[in-house]
Amino acid sequence: MKLYETLAAELAQSIQDGVLRLGDRLPSVRQASSSREVSPSTVFQAYYLLEARGLIRARERSGYYVAIGAQTLPPEPQQASQPNEDSATVDISELVFEVLESAKMREVVPLGSAFPSPLLFPMARLAKVMASSVQQLDPWSSVDDLTPGNPQLRRQIALRYLADGLHVQPDEIVITNGALDALNLCLMAVTRPGDAVLVESPTFYAALQSLERNGLRAIEVPTHPREGIDLTALARVLEKHQPKACWLMTNFQNPLGSLMSDEKKRDLVELLGRHDIPLIEDDVYGELYFGDKRPAPAKAFDTKGLVMHCSSFSKCLAPGYRVGWAVPGRYTRAVARHKLTTTLAASAPAQAALVAYLEKGGYDRHLRQLRHTLAVQQTQFMEAIARYFPAGTQATRPKGGYFLWVELPNNIDALSLHKQALAQGISIAPGPIFSAHHGFTNCIRLNYGHTWDARTEAALATLGQLVAQNL
Amino acid sequence: MKLYETLAAELAQSIQDGVLRLGDRLPSVRQASSSREVSPSTVFQAYYLLEARGLIRARERSGYYVAIGAQTLPPEPQQASQPNEDSATVDISELVFEVLESAKMREVVPLGSAFPSPLLFPMARLAKVMASSVQQLDPWSSVDDLTPGNPQLRRQIALRYLADGLHVQPDEIVITNGALDALNLCLMAVTRPGDAVLVESPTFYAALQSLERNGLRAIEVPTHPREGIDLTALARVLEKHQPKACWLMTNFQNPLGSLMSDEKKRDLVELLGRHDIPLIEDDVYGELYFGDKRPAPAKAFDTKGLVMHCSSFSKCLAPGYRVGWAVPGRYTRAVARHKLTTTLAASAPAQAALVAYLEKGGYDRHLRQLRHTLAVQQTQFMEAIARYFPAGTQATRPKGGYFLWVELPNNIDALSLHKQALAQGISIAPGPIFSAHHGFTNCIRLNYGHTWDARTEAALATLGQLVAQNL
Repeated sequence: MKLYETLAAELAQSIQDGVLRLGDRLPSVRQASSSREVSPSTVFQAYYLLEARGLIRARERSGYYVAIGAQTLPPEPQQASQPNEDSATVDISELVFEVLESAKMREVVPLGSAFPSPLLFPMARLAKVMASSVQQLDPWSSVDDLTPGNPQLRRQIALRYLADGLHVQPDEIVITNGALDALNLCLMAVTRPGDAVLVESPTFYAALQSLERNGLRAIEVPTHPREGIDLTALARVLEKHQPKACWLMTNFQNPLGSLMSDEKKRDLVELLGRHDIPLIEDDVYGELYFGDKRPAPAKAFDTKGLVMHCSSFSKCLAPGYRVGWAVPGRYTRAVARHKLTTTLAASAPAQAALVAYLEKGGYDRHLRQLRHTLAVQQTQFMEAIARYFPAGTQATRPKGGYFLWVELPNNIDALSLHKQALAQGISIAPGPIFSAHHGFTNCIRLNYGHTWDARTEAALATLGQLVAQNL
Repeated sequence: MKLYETLAAELAQSIQDGVLRLGDRLPSVRQASSSREVSPSTVFQAYYLLEARGLIRARERSGYYVAIGAQTLPPEPQQASQPNEDSATVDISELVFEVLESAKMREVVPLGSAFPSPLLFPMARLAKVMASSVQQLDPWSSVDDLTPGNPQLRRQIALRYLADGLHVQPDEIVITNGALDALNLCLMAVTRPGDAVLVESPTFYAALQSLERNGLRAIEVPTHPREGIDLTALARVLEKHQPKACWLMTNFQNPLGSLMSDEKKRDLVELLGRHDIPLIEDDVYGELYFGDKRPAPAKAFDTKGLVMHCSSFSKCLAPGYRVGWAVPGRYTRAVARHKLTTTLAASAPAQAALVAYLEKGGYDRHLRQLRHTLAVQQTQFMEAIARYFPAGTQATRPKGGYFLWVELPNNIDALSLHKQALAQGISIAPGPIFSAHHGFTNCIRLNYGHTWDARTEAALATLGQLVAQNL
């Protein structure tokens, strides 16, 4: 992260924390330059960035003022969930499909979508390197790039981890068809039908669908909307049940956006390690942080090889290419073998294209731009929610990713709201699809990873009206 | 098929059947032209083709003579297998991996490989169309080409079936990551752990690995090395057990190379239909026929939607791209949903590249060349086996594909032979990996889909010697 970005992030945090309030005047460029010991141009760049994000505004001959304040954002939910902690068979897949299929049409405003806008990715640049790399593709790549996958790609992934201070060897990595494949293969490696698996509450519906398909039971663990899974509750559930795995998201959890602190991640790994329970870690959003550095994955604290870390390029770089990976620790061989007997390998030309792109450089520049765009759009969404949604609406303020979790007044039925919104050409992801118990009936997940424009704002206004009508 | 190819195929058949024998003189070009009512140049082209395949030889000023005869080929095995027909838990995967992993090194002569040589495919042409298609790829393809898959690709596949007289609608097709993915998704859709599934004996080891991974039981059904599964035995087993599915290969079965007649396919579909048992049909080799037309899949005789037909481009066009498909009949929706929750979708640029290639034409020309190459190489392998292997060796004469099934004298231990061969830098696929009962201890599968050259011939000579030493 560049110096001006760090400065901008600090100021943004002060605004979000309410230290700097709506209308407050920022220090002059000369003051800030002197007090922070940075050049005036660094301060200018930071202010320019904050202005672009809508957080501050310049007044002629008067300096910069805070344009939004903590008070213009919807309040944050403060309570961890309180799910039924019994293990439950899962029967959610039909509901999930019903909701998702209805939201596939391009004319629908995709607030319920699971994907960010494909327009946010360097598709033209990727296509260009693919065009060149595929023509140099060794015909034997169809054999050589079989699972565990293209060796150069595994090396590039290991290099990225190394840059973030995490030591992963290329031969600990198994290339997969996206993170979902990686997660499923990890689940296969450590469970058998009838086993119980710990998940967050709420949790990513695809985890529930995987449990259901594999005949596994879900145990939902209380999870805090900002800080992630509740470790006290987790310890309690571990004593009560004999789960075979824990599947969760440490960074910018889907759907909450919660981020576990490094300390909490360390404690989580340690706690599960004491019970010898593998952790299936879904870290697909880790690169989409708005702070000053990539939050560590739980894998960084893994000393026993029990963390099965999964990620992909689908959310950061190359949607549709279907290239992800697992770092499954002591289960690497088992995961690679399941990969070989299910889909054999990821697509060789797609792997080669990613190698060419990653070797050429430009990925970090793209990621900086992407994070900036998402951060700006989050603010725009939050302001719109504050503006258009009735009192009693709360929304999380994730520090990365592209999902907001919105808790509506208690009497709102999110499934009914979903149907009403769809009739108006708007999709949302209703809370019940994120729980084996079909809970969170008054919650919705909103995707702010699509272009902010008049249509999006109008959709949020309509949604706010629908909520008010349902009160 | 062109006229001269038809003529060549007929003559080749006469040679294989022993009607034309080693040393027989072929009719002169003028005679043949007159009796067959074709132009002399058609006869010339046919003779030229047969000469290129090593089946006939020109003698100066004397005409063409049969260069090989039925008597120079190893005898064909004539008996159907006689497996234990009880249902069995499967424990084969470790053995399969042990065998396959040892054979991955490029310096090993890949007689045990499951893949044909990647050099047989139009990789440069594919790369060229991919380079162009990926640069025109709509960013929204990452959404639009999600399962069930790229609409144009599904249309192209449907068109190919139509050309072969099979009516498949694009919306009956689910694009997958290769045929293995398709087969696994079909299996998921119709079974639950503990169920029994009918397979051929011997059967493709990946089928056994899928059963094992899914906690399914295998019932092996007697199978004839030339004509495929024994329907009388199948009827008997259907009465005795309550299988939930039957998984087999109708065309050029792996490992036998057997080909079921159309009549037999019809009877198979009818028999399973009476018991309401879905047929998972692996038809990846159907396009690699040496006869005059593509043999029909069992799907052609499906009136109840019970045939789950699977195929791919991996063995015919684009190894490594990992694009296949399922036509799962009444289970289409279930298969698509399993696809969505396991790996989401096949790679979008790989799908787009295949669309571009298929639309441009050239696939049929490539296939003709590929079939020709494989047919020639089969003959070369068969002759080498006749030449180098001890008496008592039998080999199937598949009418397509790239596998030979070799039955060695009874006291040969194929697993031990595999180890000895590997020590000499040669891989083979030993019989026991093709059976839940680890049977076929004296059998091996040989892959003739790699380049025929002095190294290959030397490998077959070495293998023959090893067999003789083990007698």
